[in-house]
Amino acid sequence: MQEPSSEGKSLERLLHPDSIAIIGVARAQDKIGNVILRNLEARGYTGKVYPINPRATTDILGKKTYSSLEEVPGPIDLAVVALPAGAVVDSVRQCAAKKVGFVIVISGGFSETGEAGKAMEKEIFDSVKNSNTRVIGPNTVGVYVPDSKVSTALTLPERSSLPPSGKIGFISQSGALGLLTLDSISEYGLGISAFVNIGNRIDLSEEELIENFASDQNTRSIVVYLESFHNGKKFFEIARKVIGRKPIVLLKGGRTDRGAKAASLHTGALSTNEVVVEGALQQIGITRAYDETELMDYGKVLAYQRPVHGRNVAILTTAGGIGVITSDYVSDEEATGLAMARFSDSTKSKIRDVITSIGSCENPVDLTSEGSTEDYGKVLKILNGDDGVDAILVYALFQTARVDQSLIEVLREQTILGKPTVVGIIGSSSYVKNMLVLAERYNIPAYPSIPRVVKALKVLFSRGAYLQKRGYL
Amino acid sequence: MQEPSSEGKSLERLLHPDSIAIIGVARAQDKIGNVILRNLEARGYTGKVYPINPRATTDILGKKTYSSLEEVPGPIDLAVVALPAGAVVDSVRQCAAKKVGFVIVISGGFSETGEAGKAMEKEIFDSVKNSNTRVIGPNTVGVYVPDSKVSTALTLPERSSLPPSGKIGFISQSGALGLLTLDSISEYGLGISAFVNIGNRIDLSEEELIENFASDQNTRSIVVYLESFHNGKKFFEIARKVIGRKPIVLLKGGRTDRGAKAASLHTGALSTNEVVVEGALQQIGITRAYDETELMDYGKVLAYQRPVHGRNVAILTTAGGIGVITSDYVSDEEATGLAMARFSDSTKSKIRDVITSIGSCENPVDLTSEGSTEDYGKVLKILNGDDGVDAILVYALFQTARVDQSLIEVLREQTILGKPTVVGIIGSSSYVKNMLVLAERYNIPAYPSIPRVVKALKVLFSRGAYLQKRGYL
Repeated sequence: MQEPSSEGKSLERLLHPDSIAIIGVARAQDKIGNVILRNLEARGYTGKVYPINPRATTDILGKKTYSSLEEVPGPIDLAVVALPAGAVVDSVRQCAAKKVGFVIVISGGFSETGEAGKAMEKEIFDSVKNSNTRVIGPNTVGVYVPDSKVSTALTLPERSSLPPSGKIGFISQSGALGLLTLDSISEYGLGISAFVNIGNRIDLSEEELIENFASDQNTRSIVVYLESFHNGKKFFEIARKVIGRKPIVLLKGGRTDRGAKAASLHTGALSTNEVVVEGALQQIGITRAYDETELMDYGKVLAYQRPVHGRNVAILTTAGGIGVITSDYVSDEEATGLAMARFSDSTKSKIRDVITSIGSCENPVDLTSEGSTEDYGKVLKILNGDDGVDAILVYALFQTARVDQSLIEVLREQTILGKPTVVGIIGSSSYVKNMLVLAERYNIPAYPSIPRVVKALKVLFSRGAYLQKRGYL
Repeated sequence: MQEPSSEGKSLERLLHPDSIAIIGVARAQDKIGNVILRNLEARGYTGKVYPINPRATTDILGKKTYSSLEEVPGPIDLAVVALPAGAVVDSVRQCAAKKVGFVIVISGGFSETGEAGKAMEKEIFDSVKNSNTRVIGPNTVGVYVPDSKVSTALTLPERSSLPPSGKIGFISQSGALGLLTLDSISEYGLGISAFVNIGNRIDLSEEELIENFASDQNTRSIVVYLESFHNGKKFFEIARKVIGRKPIVLLKGGRTDRGAKAASLHTGALSTNEVVVEGALQQIGITRAYDETELMDYGKVLAYQRPVHGRNVAILTTAGGIGVITSDYVSDEEATGLAMARFSDSTKSKIRDVITSIGSCENPVDLTSEGSTEDYGKVLKILNGDDGVDAILVYALFQTARVDQSLIEVLREQTILGKPTVVGIIGSSSYVKNMLVLAERYNIPAYPSIPRVVKALKVLFSRGAYLQKRGYL
């Protein structure tokens, strides 16, 4: 609610800290401070870690434990507070005195629970007002940064996965939603540049983080989960400045009356009129997601592929039925804005010459189970050369004998040098899953189901149309 | 196109054969007959297997190989023909002479390619007309039956998974779509009673299979992929007879003009007017799916849970943000027909008494990361007792310390004894995946994303409304 205390300052000490203090580490394995310490170890953080516990007389989890922050020798970049709400203000005050860079207040029980909690937040904010110490939260799970291996997650490390380093910057108002989403995308190794859970955001908020990601060269797209705007006007101002360079995807919880009521109980969010939000998103060109899967699918395709200019989609498959259902989704105009490309006679005859006689050289091109990696390469080259094709949707189905890992190389080249391309890889054997992981490593936007591929392509199309309309291109 | 040659006869010899001949098994590993033989071995089929190859002088893959069908000692329940189209008629004729029960003609290149192919199909049909031999296909991958371990799949066994025994009967006009779908659902062990790919269905068609599944006590729901109807009138007549006892889900490829064109190139399908199809589905109460994920998700929920009578949904979660987004989907009335239940004051106060003070006792109920297995059990009991709740959507999120595998037991009891319930389990760690597999084993309808859970619940609601309207209940 207040303005950040030292706006514009680098987030370096938050995202790449050399030293972390965890305030409130108990010996019991199911206590939050203990889980956070284990998480930090499990993710491989190599900086200095200082567990703080006033009653600790010995080490916890093999780490020398301090009875207070003051006692810690040397500077502290990041402090994580995992204490009951009532003990937080004092603790944050000590952080400011120690000149800690950033304080993540994990503890809940503040403005999301009512007026008394709100007053405590004001006290926290006041306690750092005249310092250089910044606050994240309260009511947050903090940050996860793959590059620096910093994780303040409170999920059990043995039961939750975190993704590798990648190109998506992720801001979430909700902690659990953020961590569950990170867990899900880890399956095939989709990476992020950083995750920050802003929680009740009394200081660091989504606006500053969007600016930070906008100037971060590791971040190619920004995805955001919000239940309310910290400052809607400012959010849209900043988004407008950023959107030409970096695509933004927003999942806005509380778009319906009952959803908004749930949001108010969850984060204390005041609902924003849905019509106003939708209008602003469209006008500014922010991509809208409706759930956690869409959020990351869209962030990924925008990070990995160029926008599509034109609505004509070519489909390439080895499974006819998959081609049929995809054609239905693509040509379902109301839903996608896309259309099936009509190939020139020359394109058709060139395809006819390279594929099996029982295949189809019309759109969708069907190589049948006879299709080989070489066929894919040849057909993609032909499609890249047809002016009537604006984008290509390829299914790489590894269940048949004439394709193998080399197809991923063909797709890698295609996504770099060819027309904008999205890929479907379907199946659950370890071979197929390895192909999805490999695709991820090469920044090939691959998805494991038909509707997810088509929706990702639609997002590239909307992005292209928006950039053109606004004169960015 | 023709009527089945011996309609109504049992499909026993097709689905549970004691002996299988594979006609056209080459030594080369990438040839279809060879892959089918390996598949059959890989899936553990223990009946007699006879590879047939006129030029074979020694064993293939360690199996005694015969130069002709005639040579095989004893009866043959099922023959699989993997020969070029031109050689198929002769081969099927030999099958009839040998009194083979069923012949699966894998070979393509028939009516889907034009008039000449259509004429060959007529010849095949005529060659079994006066026999008791039935034909599946041509242009099919045949069958997969987990119980009898019969698989005629032509995908590489080391790259494609097949599901365990279960309660869904699966009929597909497309082979590749069918096998890819089976591969995908294998991930968490969703099972099927049988899969039959009807292909060009010159003899065995979807109508007969629906009747078969309708009277099969292992099958609780029937899912169907079609690009065209073998006989639309008959299909709907049979569906109408069956639907009260067994839910049917249909994925109809070719619902748009371009999709229909793709279907005509794929299976030679003549398009059916989409408006007519949609009207008939609604009237008869067939559940409609739009892609392969929906097809199996809906088949599963209908097999595992009772229909929902009434639109009021209670949500139970430990992650507030997940509750918010789910509330949005549920109360997005146009999309689902569902509504968020309004709890009575008594319900709210009972929930308040059992959950953590920072949780929410409103709908969605939020146990927060403090939520324990015991809390789930208590809250579910309270919700089961509230007349204003018609169905329950539960998230079982295993990333936090106070829940573990015992929560699956709670959910098992709930799905058997409580109000109709669907479950969300999100994450990708091996712990979480094991919980999804365990849920599957107990027939708990669990899904790994928010929209998939909500859509499954919507299907139970539509099914309940339909049954009530038609007086089935």
